[in-house]
Amino acid sequence: MEKLTLDIKGMTCDHCKAAVTGALEELNGVASVEVKLDKGTADVTYDEAKVSVDQMKETVEDQGYDVN
Amino acid sequence: MEKLTLDIKGMTCDHCKAAVTGALEELNGVASVEVKLDKGTADVTYDEAKVSVDQMKETVEDQGYDVN
Repeated sequence: MEKLTLDIKGMTCDHCKAAVTGALEELNGVASVEVKLDKGTADVTYDEAKVSVDQMKETVEDQGYDVN
Repeated sequence: MEKLTLDIKGMTCDHCKAAVTGALEELNGVASVEVKLDKGTADVTYDEAKVSVDQMKETVEDQGYDVN
């Protein structure tokens, strides 16, 4: 398992937190997600054999947020 | 039909808009809802014989927002 912190812009409330968390958790290979609204981050634990960083970024962007 | 503008605190994003709109629209007697995020308001058209202002306020509060 790998760990990564995504920097995400535009998350403002618990709905945003739930949207980002839920979308990432649906990806095969994502083991855990912890979104921190105050920091604008998502800590993700994932299996790099199953899911790529680009896939995770695209998933967050598809929810309407910018990812650095 | 009556018209009312609810002042709502705490709506920050399109998820909030959808949550408030959806919850109000589910009430029997509510004909239309237009949430304005920038103003923090919801314009509601409703049948006062079927739904009360207090019911609408409670519904919004149940979604996690303060209503004046």
